[in-house]
Amino acid sequence: MLKIGILGGGQLGRMLLQAAANYPVITHVMESDPECPAAHLCHQFTRGDIRNFEDVYQFGKGLDGISIEIESVNVEALEKLESEGIRVYPSPSALRIIRDKILQKQFYKEHDIPTSPFYVTQNRDELRKHDGFLPAVHKMGSGGYDGRGVQILSHAGELHKGFDAPSILERKVNIHKEISQIIAMNRKGETAIFPAAEMIFDPVHNQLDYQLSPAEIPQQSLWRIEAIALKVVKDLKTPGIFAVELFIDKNGDILVNETAPRVHNSGHHTIEANYCSQFDMLWRVMLDYPLGNPKQILPSAMVNLVGSEGQSGEACYEGLEDVLKLENAFLHLYGKKETRPGRKMGHVTILSTDKSDLVYKARTIKQKLRITSKQPV
Amino acid sequence: MLKIGILGGGQLGRMLLQAAANYPVITHVMESDPECPAAHLCHQFTRGDIRNFEDVYQFGKGLDGISIEIESVNVEALEKLESEGIRVYPSPSALRIIRDKILQKQFYKEHDIPTSPFYVTQNRDELRKHDGFLPAVHKMGSGGYDGRGVQILSHAGELHKGFDAPSILERKVNIHKEISQIIAMNRKGETAIFPAAEMIFDPVHNQLDYQLSPAEIPQQSLWRIEAIALKVVKDLKTPGIFAVELFIDKNGDILVNETAPRVHNSGHHTIEANYCSQFDMLWRVMLDYPLGNPKQILPSAMVNLVGSEGQSGEACYEGLEDVLKLENAFLHLYGKKETRPGRKMGHVTILSTDKSDLVYKARTIKQKLRITSKQPV
Repeated sequence: MLKIGILGGGQLGRMLLQAAANYPVITHVMESDPECPAAHLCHQFTRGDIRNFEDVYQFGKGLDGISIEIESVNVEALEKLESEGIRVYPSPSALRIIRDKILQKQFYKEHDIPTSPFYVTQNRDELRKHDGFLPAVHKMGSGGYDGRGVQILSHAGELHKGFDAPSILERKVNIHKEISQIIAMNRKGETAIFPAAEMIFDPVHNQLDYQLSPAEIPQQSLWRIEAIALKVVKDLKTPGIFAVELFIDKNGDILVNETAPRVHNSGHHTIEANYCSQFDMLWRVMLDYPLGNPKQILPSAMVNLVGSEGQSGEACYEGLEDVLKLENAFLHLYGKKETRPGRKMGHVTILSTDKSDLVYKARTIKQKLRITSKQPV
Repeated sequence: MLKIGILGGGQLGRMLLQAAANYPVITHVMESDPECPAAHLCHQFTRGDIRNFEDVYQFGKGLDGISIEIESVNVEALEKLESEGIRVYPSPSALRIIRDKILQKQFYKEHDIPTSPFYVTQNRDELRKHDGFLPAVHKMGSGGYDGRGVQILSHAGELHKGFDAPSILERKVNIHKEISQIIAMNRKGETAIFPAAEMIFDPVHNQLDYQLSPAEIPQQSLWRIEAIALKVVKDLKTPGIFAVELFIDKNGDILVNETAPRVHNSGHHTIEANYCSQFDMLWRVMLDYPLGNPKQILPSAMVNLVGSEGQSGEACYEGLEDVLKLENAFLHLYGKKETRPGRKMGHVTILSTDKSDLVYKARTIKQKLRITSKQPV
């Protein structure tokens, strides 16, 4: 049986391991917290720092293959492992491009992949030269994750908020819709394209409200999105699974925002809504099996369950009964002991052929479920 | 978080644990083999003998609840645990009835649940008195499992093959169809009824060929099956999940064959084919959550993958690629190291609205996949 390791033990690792149990594979996980969501579901857990060369190298060298559930891992160790014949998903060379937002953006430009116009700024002084380019988004080249390391700069008076480090200043897109396109590629270069998903934002708080799949966009836009995302993956030249996040702007133009070279939050619905889930698909890629069928079984909505504001401490789920009572709603809690404001603690996928049913249930879940701490902080 | 233990670590435990990872629950498993299919997927594995009083009692006494994946467990220990406030699914009193085929058959008779006529025989001498009752099936009261402890006695000349131990001699049913009806009951007595499944037998080898759900039988038979199975579960007076196996005879009469008070092979398709799977449903019962929706998403076929004849040793899967290439076929391998002739090594569920597609793919899988040993014995 092949031995496959995952760097990181969060919810993505957890769901990968739930899917792994259908295949003949020995699973290894490395993570610093032995009580992380994935720790108890693998064959072999190793406590270690995924950013540390020696930890990653020692973890990987007895394995047949290795993957990631987060980009902030030690790439040098992955390069050494790859040179020694261990298969790495995605390849370290692709990971190097993607985890640095400057290299990633330059990669799109060099490969004629549509993306919003940008400048590279090495420090805050350089940033000040581009006051005519605003409104824009300033993104740190490295170190950013899940909203950290990103600033919106609306006018010259806000330039002092920009990062004093190598960054990308990109033109703010006049967004009509935000789309996620998940694609898998195996070692032969064969690809499987999932139906696109659409992020629905709360117009008041500008936060992700819920997600719908398939995305409600014209067929021609769908084709274009698939073609662009496919080009991203082919040009990255690595097997693996990828979430290409795109904008449709108010003119109907399609622009790549960014790419994640791994299973992704926007693909959680595929567990129930598609014949082959994103997690299943990555195992098929890593085990050299035929790609699965990414087609949808039923339309879906997906709601992230995040820690309530002002609540930090041992997680307590209020309103869980109301969610579990909803027909055709699939609960996934990640088993995280501690909640924090905005922390991803779980998700719910809803299946229905009726869009109003999807939206109604997504909203109901957001209203009814609160993740609080036993001792509010 | 509640702590729930499972006695037995085979494929049923494995699939229970895959489902458990969606809920806030700490999982414990006891089994003698630390490399069993479920061992690596629980929070806490305990090596022990599930038939031993002390092992089961020590395992269970720190838990909030306990369940089984096989009937041959130490009931006395479960009774002591229950008396100390630990919740047991199913209750030990129901388990005592079901695990003894004599008590189970008498239970059906006492509760006016239709079942084929029978005699109890204490030994082979007593059996000989009933030569006028043949053809019949002779079943040992206890110790039988998965076909062991069952004999067909066609005529008086075969009576010497009968068991010289307390047994049931039951009239052989002239079978039209074999049906499995899965039902869950929670502690409040609320029930969830899954669509019935139908076993399709190979007419030549008289072995289970594949299974279809929903069963293709008249609506009136379905209603009657549901009503009978519901009565079985209500009269057993215990929360849990149950597979009631029934015959429809050539006259259209419906007779209960036997009941399993646990998740069951005939419910594997519910993982993909139903909104709530049998595994998910049992967790909902044990965690005191609302029952899930047992309705089907799509019609399904399910094929068991069993060890090939004449092959014993380290398992090797021939033709796996062909199975993984089939669209809408969901592979589940159980991670058992060793194959043996007829051993359940995995299953495949197929989803389709087209029955001929289901049957074609079920047959293809049975033709293409062989589970052999690296060193044939």
